[in-house]
Amino acid sequence: MTYPMEKGLRERAARVIPGGMYGHQAVGALPEGYPQFFARAEGAWLWDADGNLLLDLMCAYGPQLFGYGNAKIDRAYVDQMATGDAMTGPSPLMVDLAEKMVSTIRHADWAMFCKNGSDATTMALMTARAHTGKNGVVRARGAYHGSQPWANPRPRGIAPGDKAEQHFCDYNDVASLEAAVATAGKNLAAIFAAPYRHDVFVDQTQPDAAYARRARELADETGALLIVDDVRAGFRMARDCSWSLVGVQPDLSCWGKAIANGHPISALVGADKARGAAETIYATGSFWFAAAAMAASLATLEQIHSTDYLERIILMGERLRSGFDKHARRHGFTLRQTGPAQMPLILFENDADMRLGYHWCSRMVAHGVYVHPWHNMFLSAAMTDENIDFALAAAEESFRELEQAAPTLGPNTRYPGPKRG
Amino acid sequence: MTYPMEKGLRERAARVIPGGMYGHQAVGALPEGYPQFFARAEGAWLWDADGNLLLDLMCAYGPQLFGYGNAKIDRAYVDQMATGDAMTGPSPLMVDLAEKMVSTIRHADWAMFCKNGSDATTMALMTARAHTGKNGVVRARGAYHGSQPWANPRPRGIAPGDKAEQHFCDYNDVASLEAAVATAGKNLAAIFAAPYRHDVFVDQTQPDAAYARRARELADETGALLIVDDVRAGFRMARDCSWSLVGVQPDLSCWGKAIANGHPISALVGADKARGAAETIYATGSFWFAAAAMAASLATLEQIHSTDYLERIILMGERLRSGFDKHARRHGFTLRQTGPAQMPLILFENDADMRLGYHWCSRMVAHGVYVHPWHNMFLSAAMTDENIDFALAAAEESFRELEQAAPTLGPNTRYPGPKRG
Repeated sequence: MTYPMEKGLRERAARVIPGGMYGHQAVGALPEGYPQFFARAEGAWLWDADGNLLLDLMCAYGPQLFGYGNAKIDRAYVDQMATGDAMTGPSPLMVDLAEKMVSTIRHADWAMFCKNGSDATTMALMTARAHTGKNGVVRARGAYHGSQPWANPRPRGIAPGDKAEQHFCDYNDVASLEAAVATAGKNLAAIFAAPYRHDVFVDQTQPDAAYARRARELADETGALLIVDDVRAGFRMARDCSWSLVGVQPDLSCWGKAIANGHPISALVGADKARGAAETIYATGSFWFAAAAMAASLATLEQIHSTDYLERIILMGERLRSGFDKHARRHGFTLRQTGPAQMPLILFENDADMRLGYHWCSRMVAHGVYVHPWHNMFLSAAMTDENIDFALAAAEESFRELEQAAPTLGPNTRYPGPKRG
Repeated sequence: MTYPMEKGLRERAARVIPGGMYGHQAVGALPEGYPQFFARAEGAWLWDADGNLLLDLMCAYGPQLFGYGNAKIDRAYVDQMATGDAMTGPSPLMVDLAEKMVSTIRHADWAMFCKNGSDATTMALMTARAHTGKNGVVRARGAYHGSQPWANPRPRGIAPGDKAEQHFCDYNDVASLEAAVATAGKNLAAIFAAPYRHDVFVDQTQPDAAYARRARELADETGALLIVDDVRAGFRMARDCSWSLVGVQPDLSCWGKAIANGHPISALVGADKARGAAETIYATGSFWFAAAAMAASLATLEQIHSTDYLERIILMGERLRSGFDKHARRHGFTLRQTGPAQMPLILFENDADMRLGYHWCSRMVAHGVYVHPWHNMFLSAAMTDENIDFALAAAEESFRELEQAAPTLGPNTRYPGPKRG
C-alpha cells in the first residue's frame, strides 16, 4: 500500500483541524499504516484516499448495518430529501417512525428523535431526573454513554458539576450495583446500563441475567428509571432492546448509529411511566425534525423486520471467530475473542502493551482488512461468506507475519489504554 | 384552509410522541391554525400535510438560506452520499471544508465539525475550560446557547451541577458584564455572547460595539476565551463571524443551522490561541465525520462567496419591514420591528399577552404566510420580490381583519412567554 494522498491530507489537516483529527475516528492511537481518510465506500468495502481497498470490519463504528450505499435505504433518503427534509416542522414520517419504533421495541410506548447518541442518553438522564425529582445516577465504571460533559470519558474541559451526583458500579457485579444504589440513597434518578460490557481496551462480557434483573428490581424499589443505552449495539443483538435477550425491560432505551444505516438520526424511546416526565423536558436541535433520515430509518426498520440479517451476521461472526482462533493457534498465539460474535473484540494473551495486537492489525490492514485493536468491531448484512473467507485468508497471512516479527517487536508507544495483564 | 390530515396526524402523534411534539418546532405555544406537519418544501414555500401552501418566513428556524431543495447544494449532498457518507473515517472533504471555514471566518485558524449547534457551544465551553484550567462562565440572561443541560432554558431534568459556576449579565450592558466577570473572579473560563440579542419574546437589539469591545478586553485581561455563538445568525449577518460587523474578533465561534443549507452539520472554529486546548478535549459523535453534509456545506459556502444573497435578503427584509409598518399604521396598530431586517421580529405595542400578535399571525397563516409571533424569523435567498409582495398583501388583509377582531379578542391563553408591557 502506498499513501501519497494520505500524507498530503494529514499535512493539510494538521494546519486546520486540532491535532489533525479528533474523536473516535482519529487514527493517532491506532497501529501504523492505518489510513485516516476514506474516499469511497460500497457494500462492505472502503477505499482510502489513495485508492487502497479495505474490507471494513468497523462499519463506520456501527452505523453501517446493511452495507454502504444500501440502495433501498439511500433511495428513501434521497426521495424524501427532494420532497422535504429540514423544514419549519416535522413531516408526517415522524409519526410513522415513532409508531414503528414503538411497535418494534417491546418496552417502548413513545419515541423522541434527535441526532447524536449523546443526545439520546442526555435526554434519558433529563427524563429520569424530571420523573423522580432527584439527580443521582448509577452507572458502570468504564461504560461509554457518549461525549457530553456528564458522560465524557476524559477529564479535559470537564467541570466538577458536570459529573456531580454520579455513583459507579462494576458491570455485572450485583454487589457493587447494590452498593452504588445504596450510596445514592434517596437521591436516585437513574440506573444506566450498557446492553453488554463493550468498554474499550478490555474483554467484553455478555450481560448477566441476574445483574439485569437486580437492576430492574432496584429501579422499582427506589423509583428510579432503568435506562439501557443501546446506541452502539441496538439492532445488532436483537430486533428489540438488547436486554430483551436477558428478559429485562428498561423504562427508557437510547438508540442511534445503525437505526438509519448511517444516516444521521438517534432516538430515545420509553415506557408510559416516563411519558409525563419526557413531556416536560426541553430537548431540541436544529436538524432533529428533518425528514430524510426518518425515511431512511423506516427503510432500515423494514429490512430489520423482513430479512434474516441478524441471523446472518451472527453466523458470519461465528465463522470469523473460529477461523481467527484456528489461525492464531497454528502460529503460536492465543486470542481472547469476546463480545457477541457479530460485534467482536480480539485481544491477544500475554500482550500487556498490545504490541502483538497492533502488529497483527497493521498486517491485516496491509492485506486489505480494516480491524481494530481495542474497540469492538461490527459486522454488516452486506458481508458475504466470500468476505469472511477473504478476512480469514488475510488473518492467516498476518498471523504468520506476526510470528516472524514477534521476537523483535519493540514496546508499543502508540497504545493509549490501561495496562493489561 | 382545512386540516383533516393534520387532525389525524396529531391524534396519532399524541399516542407515540410525548406531548404530541417536543422542542422548538412544537406548535402548542403558537396561535391557532398553525399546521404541525409539513409534507413538502420547495424554494421559499412549504406545503402542510393537507396541501395548503405557505410562504415560509421561518426557513426551518434558520437552516434554509438558499431555498428548500437548492439544486446545487442537494446535488453535492446526493453525489457525495453515493460515493461515501458516514464511513470508518472522514473523507478528504473534511479537510477542504476546514480550510474553507478558516479562509471564510477571519478569526478562525482551525475548525471542528459536529451535528447540533449545541455540540458546538458545548465544545466551546469545554475548550475554554481546558484552555484556562478554570470553570466559570459569563453569559447573558435569556440568551439561548442550545438545549444541553448547562444551557437548557427550562428547569425540568436539570441538576444544580449542570449550571454551576455560571454568572449572568444583561446583553449590551457593560456595567453588568463587568459585574458578572468580577463575580467569577479568578475562576473565569469563558465569556459567551450572542451575535445580537435574539432572545425569544422580547425586542431584539443589535450588539453595541462598546459592549463587544469590553467583552474582548475583559477576556484578554482575565485570560478567558471570548465565544460568539453564531449558530442562529451565522452567514445571515456577514460573510464572516457576525461580530466582524462591530470590529471584534472572538477566540471561538459556533456555527450550525445555515452552514449547509439545512443538511445536518455544525462547527466550532477557533483561533490558534485555543488550538492546544481544543486538541485535548474529547468530542465526538457517530455521524460527525460523515461526508455528504460536508459536501453540502462546501456547496453552500460557494454560494455565500459567489452570490449577492446577503445584500438581497437585507433589501427584501427592509422592504418587508417598511411594508408591514405601513399596513399596520393604516389599521391603527404600532409594531415594534427589531433585529436585523433579514432576521425580523415583529411585536405589537400595547399587547401584553400577545393577543394582537397571535391573531395577526393566525390570519397571516390563513392567508398563506408562515410567520412567528415571538421568535425571530429568517429570510432566504430563494425569496423574490414577488414573494415579498405576496407577504405584504397577506399582511394588509390580516391587519384589516385584526382591526375588526381586536375589540372582541379574549385573553391569550396560548402565550407562554414573560409578561410584557
